[in-house]
Amino acid sequence: NDRLLRAARREPVDRVPVWLMRQAGRYLPEFRAVRAEHDFFEVCRTPELACEVTLQPLRRFAEAGAPLDASIIFSDILVIPQALGMEVQMVKGKGPHFPDPLDTEADLDGLTPDGAADRLGYVYDALRLTRREIGGACPLFGFTGAPWTLMAYMIEGGGSKAFAKSKAWLYRHPAAAERLLRMLTDSVSDYLIRQADAGAQALQVFDSHAGALPKATFDRFVLPGLLEIATRVKAAHPDVPLVVFARNAHYAYEALAESAYDVIGVDEGMPPLAARQAVRGRKALQGNLDNGALFAEPTEIRRLTAEMLDGFAKGPGEKGLLGYIGNLGHGMLPGHDPEHAIAYVQAIHELSQGRAGL
Amino acid sequence: NDRLLRAARREPVDRVPVWLMRQAGRYLPEFRAVRAEHDFFEVCRTPELACEVTLQPLRRFAEAGAPLDASIIFSDILVIPQALGMEVQMVKGKGPHFPDPLDTEADLDGLTPDGAADRLGYVYDALRLTRREIGGACPLFGFTGAPWTLMAYMIEGGGSKAFAKSKAWLYRHPAAAERLLRMLTDSVSDYLIRQADAGAQALQVFDSHAGALPKATFDRFVLPGLLEIATRVKAAHPDVPLVVFARNAHYAYEALAESAYDVIGVDEGMPPLAARQAVRGRKALQGNLDNGALFAEPTEIRRLTAEMLDGFAKGPGEKGLLGYIGNLGHGMLPGHDPEHAIAYVQAIHELSQGRAGL
Repeated sequence: NDRLLRAARREPVDRVPVWLMRQAGRYLPEFRAVRAEHDFFEVCRTPELACEVTLQPLRRFAEAGAPLDASIIFSDILVIPQALGMEVQMVKGKGPHFPDPLDTEADLDGLTPDGAADRLGYVYDALRLTRREIGGACPLFGFTGAPWTLMAYMIEGGGSKAFAKSKAWLYRHPAAAERLLRMLTDSVSDYLIRQADAGAQALQVFDSHAGALPKATFDRFVLPGLLEIATRVKAAHPDVPLVVFARNAHYAYEALAESAYDVIGVDEGMPPLAARQAVRGRKALQGNLDNGALFAEPTEIRRLTAEMLDGFAKGPGEKGLLGYIGNLGHGMLPGHDPEHAIAYVQAIHELSQGRAGL
Repeated sequence: NDRLLRAARREPVDRVPVWLMRQAGRYLPEFRAVRAEHDFFEVCRTPELACEVTLQPLRRFAEAGAPLDASIIFSDILVIPQALGMEVQMVKGKGPHFPDPLDTEADLDGLTPDGAADRLGYVYDALRLTRREIGGACPLFGFTGAPWTLMAYMIEGGGSKAFAKSKAWLYRHPAAAERLLRMLTDSVSDYLIRQADAGAQALQVFDSHAGALPKATFDRFVLPGLLEIATRVKAAHPDVPLVVFARNAHYAYEALAESAYDVIGVDEGMPPLAARQAVRGRKALQGNLDNGALFAEPTEIRRLTAEMLDGFAKGPGEKGLLGYIGNLGHGMLPGHDPEHAIAYVQAIHELSQGRAGL
């Protein structure tokens, strides 16, 4: 099943491919069963466990008659800060926590950028094992956090709303910020290349915090690194589709449409038609049902899916759903019912039949 | 000083008026001194204390030679849920907390919408007292939370990132959601009218959570209430400028530009030129420096302010800074240095001289 790879290259497919951000996660009882026995980062670091939870949604959705068109290796964006020498804990009900976040520029001297990507061998092992186990049923994604998103976590010490400390670095200590972003751009680029070396067939860059910045600040600090990562990864692996998901940075579509990325991930705040109009066929698009919509009854999910598909099908060129990949605007949530996610995948498959070029 | 009122009506002024969201707040040592003696909601409920902290930034900025062009009454958007019978605590370092949030539709029967606005007499008293104390030095804003933003707090029980529970109401229990939103739209409309009755010279509606929703969901559940509030308030007080701040809902500019609001509040994620182009002179605009930019040194703040003003001055019509009010894209943060906020106000005043119609 290479629908996703073809759609990412804007080639015709019989129906729209679909996968779900965080499709391996706590909404699945079989995932919670694994997590009951193993710490979060233990699952990331044990290739057999990472493989098992990566395969769980593939099995469940296939058995329900709604096979997913891509898998994504179970891991976390914070393995990069860990490889740089920082401690990260996953606190139940709270999310990630850095006991010792970055405070001043001097703290950068304590990071260990040399060979950071080499210390993530467990991810490459998990990719190799999982790719073998999937046996071609669908492509396998690798992924990374983007430099700014990782920087914000490393300075805030966890999730944030105002990003006060990390923005203070950007605005008050721009040289220190640039130094950290440089380090992260290098590590992230190496890490993605190594993931593709290990068999990842597509790669996604998550810039979850992009929308916290105004355009001018994004253009100065964030965009150059995002563009460089794409250029370096595509130089090493020209045939591996590369997705960029700069969440809520709607002002960035024009620049990303001219970049080396193949696919732009669209969050739920960007109307599908507006995304099509901004990108004008230069890139494939991926997204963007509100993850909250999966709380609706399946008939309502189907209605909302039809509305979304109609939005992505319109716009300049009017080529229907060519160059489009179904997904959510953000990840699956712990409270979601797996049956509702299956209803969404089914709706995309059925409603897009014959509308994506073949 | 009626610059703000004139700019809100898109009339010529000598220089751009400016105020700051959360200008009375923890970044001021004199505010922290009051809070050390009094609970947060005690300050809201005691007109003398609310008046005192409202006046604090006016005094400080005036003494520094950078007088603010508007004041905003010290209060909180969560006084409406309180007036509806819910308990709200302000937890140090965590923000608002509802010990008993709304869970099911049956919980709506426990709310007390009848006469809710009557139970906020302490706000009207604070407005009357503060208006008298200001003595015309600048206009006094009243404000409210918007129905969806309040609904999300009442269901989530505090701040949220994913809005899983409140979105579940919208998507799975739309009738219950509509019932709650109806109740809030009525209370909020009455509350704003009563604030203007008490002397508020301008009013702002904060829809801080608007951007958590996709356009279709916003258009169905949120927009009708926002429009109705404006229509009702303007019918009662046609001369009181009304500002709507639908944070991160950039898809809403077209609809808001055709509404009864006078001013659209712009968050930092919307580039100034894009805001001008979307609104095309139909409304005044207010915003939008990234609050993180106030962590920069004053010379850099001035550079960023110049860049922002140039963005707002361009666009259709090219009337410079006519119909523009300076502000941040979001509120002041506890870690801000008051001197940097003063530098921002000064920069706007100096750099906008003669560019706003007079």
